[in-house]
Amino acid sequence: MTIYDWHTGPYPARVRIALGELGMQSQVRFVSVDLWKGEHKTPVFLVKNYSGTLPVLELDDGTLIAECTAITQYLDALNDKPILTGVTPREQGVIHMMSKRAEIELLDAVSVYFHHATPGLGPDVEIYQNAEWGLRQRDKAVRGMHYFDSVLRQVPFIAGDTFSMADITVVGGLIFAGLVKLSVPQECEALRAWYERMLERPSVQNRIVMSEPVTISA
Amino acid sequence: MTIYDWHTGPYPARVRIALGELGMQSQVRFVSVDLWKGEHKTPVFLVKNYSGTLPVLELDDGTLIAECTAITQYLDALNDKPILTGVTPREQGVIHMMSKRAEIELLDAVSVYFHHATPGLGPDVEIYQNAEWGLRQRDKAVRGMHYFDSVLRQVPFIAGDTFSMADITVVGGLIFAGLVKLSVPQECEALRAWYERMLERPSVQNRIVMSEPVTISA
Ligand SMILES: N[C@@H](CCC(=O)N[C@@H](CS)C(=O)NCC(=O)O)C(=O)O
Ligand SMILES: N[C@@H](CCC(=O)N[C@@H](CS)C(=O)NCC(=O)O)C(=O)O
Repeated sequence: MTIYDWHTGPYPARVRIALGELGMQSQVRFVSVDLWKGEHKTPVFLVKNYSGTLPVLELDDGTLIAECTAITQYLDALNDKPILTGVTPREQGVIHMMSKRAEIELLDAVSVYFHHATPGLGPDVEIYQNAEWGLRQRDKAVRGMHYFDSVLRQVPFIAGDTFSMADITVVGGLIFAGLVKLSVPQECEALRAWYERMLERPSVQNRIVMSEPVTISA
Repeated sequence: MTIYDWHTGPYPARVRIALGELGMQSQVRFVSVDLWKGEHKTPVFLVKNYSGTLPVLELDDGTLIAECTAITQYLDALNDKPILTGVTPREQGVIHMMSKRAEIELLDAVSVYFHHATPGLGPDVEIYQNAEWGLRQRDKAVRGMHYFDSVLRQVPFIAGDTFSMADITVVGGLIFAGLVKLSVPQECEALRAWYERMLERPSVQNRIVMSEPVTISA
């Protein structure tokens, strides 16, 4: 399996953390696509992922799977007993909901803020920006932090009693928030404590070093 | 099971079509949340779904599942053999990717266009609009139609050889596009032909009549 990604990207982090949790890092070859040079928007890369985003998983038969959620679903399903996406229908539904909610209300919102209301990846890559929209999304992300804090005051993990893909998505959101200097409000004590615990997980700690970037070839 | 939705909504249509495909309509009670009155943004409804969107599935034990993808995953997993979200890991990954791509590149884009660059649900509900962003998303949706047309020139269904959740998401996108008078370009012949076939499916034809709206109580 090959993963096209960028070692410090917050979305790539999600798949790297999933691989760590599944103990599958060594089965993957990482190919580096330089976000800062806009390599994810080149015609050769858009053939791999129409949306022009990282990460993308390429299977040995050539199948391409983009989207963190889809990649995580794939990887987790390789196991007899999924550990990230739920076993019972109810677990699956709740985990998918909370992960999607973490994208909409936190991670994607931070991403839009970064790309639209900050210099983002630089003028050559950010060819269209809508600062007003970006600032709205920043505010939405901060509201999202309060929401996830309220969740974590009730249950130990984002989707309930066990660690799941939904936790990984919120971790991705807070990694991105950290990169753009959007701090978690002090009063979000449950979210802050949960994040401390998450940062101690080996899968989170080892997500960057495990890559050996090579240059993408056409 | 209870579903909170609005009978003509394009996202609710996705879950109604999924229920039709699964032959499960009769197991569900539909509760009507009036989008045009902004009932999905009231405090009582936001407790059910923080994001304030329809549909939401409520299980008999009180579990709430929002997000069409999560609801579809739940419903499909109730069967011994899933028919909408894939059986093998590869099928699951590709279907989730294509469904997400259909949201990002088509359905969600049309939705943002509707809410931001048209009167949307009216001035009382659309309290913030960003027309420039909305128009950008309209153009993105039209590009998305061309993309899905290119997919359907290669394979009979959005995620390959069989009907899946990904087809339902694109159907949702084209239902929404029709509502906002965004027509599928003539040259998208494969997409148009596929949509004709989709509109013949009983699950798509019967999605609206099967509901018996009742008023939501607090
Ligand atoms: N919906 C995608 C989003 C991925 C994404 O936005 N990745 C970032 C890298 S951290 C990216 O490619 N950003 C570049 C851009 O949006 O132009 C997913 O969940 O995988
Ligand atoms: N991400 C949600 C989006 C659902 C959605 O946008 N539903 C529409 C109804 S067709 C809605 O509630 N729109 C109201 C709004 O966004 O204010 C999903 O996939 O279920």
